Amino acid sequence: MQKMTADIGSRRWVVAEGFIPGGGIEGDRSLESHETYCVLNAGSQDALLKITLFFTNRPSVGPYRVTVPAARTLHLRTNDLDDPEPVPRDTDYAAVIQSDRPVVIQHTRLDSRAERIALMTTMAYAVS
Amino acid sequence: MQKMTADIGSRRWVVAEGFIPGGGIEGDRSLESHETYCVLNAGSQDALLKITLFFTNRPSVGPYRVTVPAARTLHLRTNDLDDPEPVPRDTDYAAVIQSDRPVVIQHTRLDSRAERIALMTTMAYAVS
Amino acid sequence: MQKMTADIGSRRWVVAEGFIPGGGIEGDRSLESHETYCVLNAGSQDALLKITLFFTNRPSVGPYRVTVPAARTLHLRTNDLDDPEPVPRDTDYAAVIQSDRPVVIQHTRLDSRAERIALMTTMAYAVS
Amino acid sequence: MQKMTADIGSRRWVVAEGFIPGGGIEGDRSLESHETYCVLNAGSQDALLKITLFFTNRPSVGPYRVTVPAARTLHLRTNDLDDPEPVPRDTDYAAVIQSDRPVVIQHTRLDSRAERIALMTTMAYAVS
Repeated sequence: MQKMTADIGSRRWVVAEGFIPGGGIEGDRSLESHETYCVLNAGSQDALLKITLFFTNRPSVGPYRVTVPAARTLHLRTNDLDDPEPVPRDTDYAAVIQSDRPVVIQHTRLDSRAERIALMTTMAYAVS
Repeated sequence: MQKMTADIGSRRWVVAEGFIPGGGIEGDRSLESHETYCVLNAGSQDALLKITLFFTNRPSVGPYRVTVPAARTLHLRTNDLDDPEPVPRDTDYAAVIQSDRPVVIQHTRLDSRAERIALMTTMAYAVS
Repeated sequence: MQKMTADIGSRRWVVAEGFIPGGGIEGDRSLESHETYCVLNAGSQDALLKITLFFTNRPSVGPYRVTVPAARTLHLRTNDLDDPEPVPRDTDYAAVIQSDRPVVIQHTRLDSRAERIALMTTMAYAVS
Repeated sequence: MQKMTADIGSRRWVVAEGFIPGGGIEGDRSLESHETYCVLNAGSQDALLKITLFFTNRPSVGPYRVTVPAARTLHLRTNDLDDPEPVPRDTDYAAVIQSDRPVVIQHTRLDSRAERIALMTTMAYAVS
């Protein structure tokens, strides 16, 4: 498998939608409002990601550095990013994700503000 | 970062789904029914977008002109477009978005008609 | 505009997910459970679509023939297809959509079975 | 039709998001929380799929072997995979799906934990 999956994906991805709702269900991590970049590193070497966040009214922030081990997936919540600074809630943003190894990235948001949950997902945009 | 992101995306995008629900939660802008084109301009120069809307039973309308500053994201609600004319509610439409600089566009709808919210998103179609 | 949009899209598209829920909100067409192929024909000539539906346990059905006029969008509900036969409810299916002109297709489902509504959307797969 | 559809799709696909909610509506299979890979094999020969699942903290598992007959669609619930082992609930995972014939794959999750349902879908990532 290693050999067949070593080169799966792209080194640059974009998620143009970004918004972490400030409210929602609390006390159950899986149901809290969150945004996730689901990263698959199917290769045989760790991938180092550098994430840059873009905003509407201020300069970009980053890079946030994240490692996705070889042959692992990391479902990274932007809620949890805090270095160089936390991602502001209730604020529009977008992300460019650069990796030193090919990975695949899918974007998901769970929004539990309205007492129930709403979900959305899309493959991120692979820069060619 | 500037250099690495200057050419990210495409100059023409299509969102074939378009429908702004006429009802929904009111009094909280973030929960009103809306459709959004999330545009990322990761480059170092402003991007001028020209949006043309297509309908089922009448000629296309546009262009709507929108500027996305360099190194910024704009989450543009079609609800807010009003020149040359507002986007009709409860009406099927589709959009072609042309930009003079490469950008990435993701489409999202929040629908709060049924007391709760429903979400959907997809990357727009990049015309090659 | 005509000139710039005449060749937008692809002539073959696939939507692998298909399922029209048999129940849901009734009496309001916009909130009934439905599946839609949102087709944009940005070109200057009408597009003739031939849709073939694939199932789990029986041969494919079609083609269903649909015309999308020049410079128009058609948000086609599979609920409304009836020639050669209606699309069965509560049944898995998938679709190949062929067009004699380039078009762009986005897939959306609204599911109102559980008293509220759920939404999902994705660009269809453009066969290269 | 056979001839025109024989080569539709790709032989390798990735779904980077994966999570089967452990709870939800019970007693109605269509409303149980589930994740589905909707596979269309539009060709004239059966397709043999090998699915490998990747996790956050342990080695990958697989391959799971699934056959999609010629000219059929299979909406495969990951809930139902059990050989070599069931897919754990409430656990992040990702999938690489390899096929000996071209197929098209779309990913969908229905989440019925919060008494209502939430839906999301996206085309899987076709490895080129």
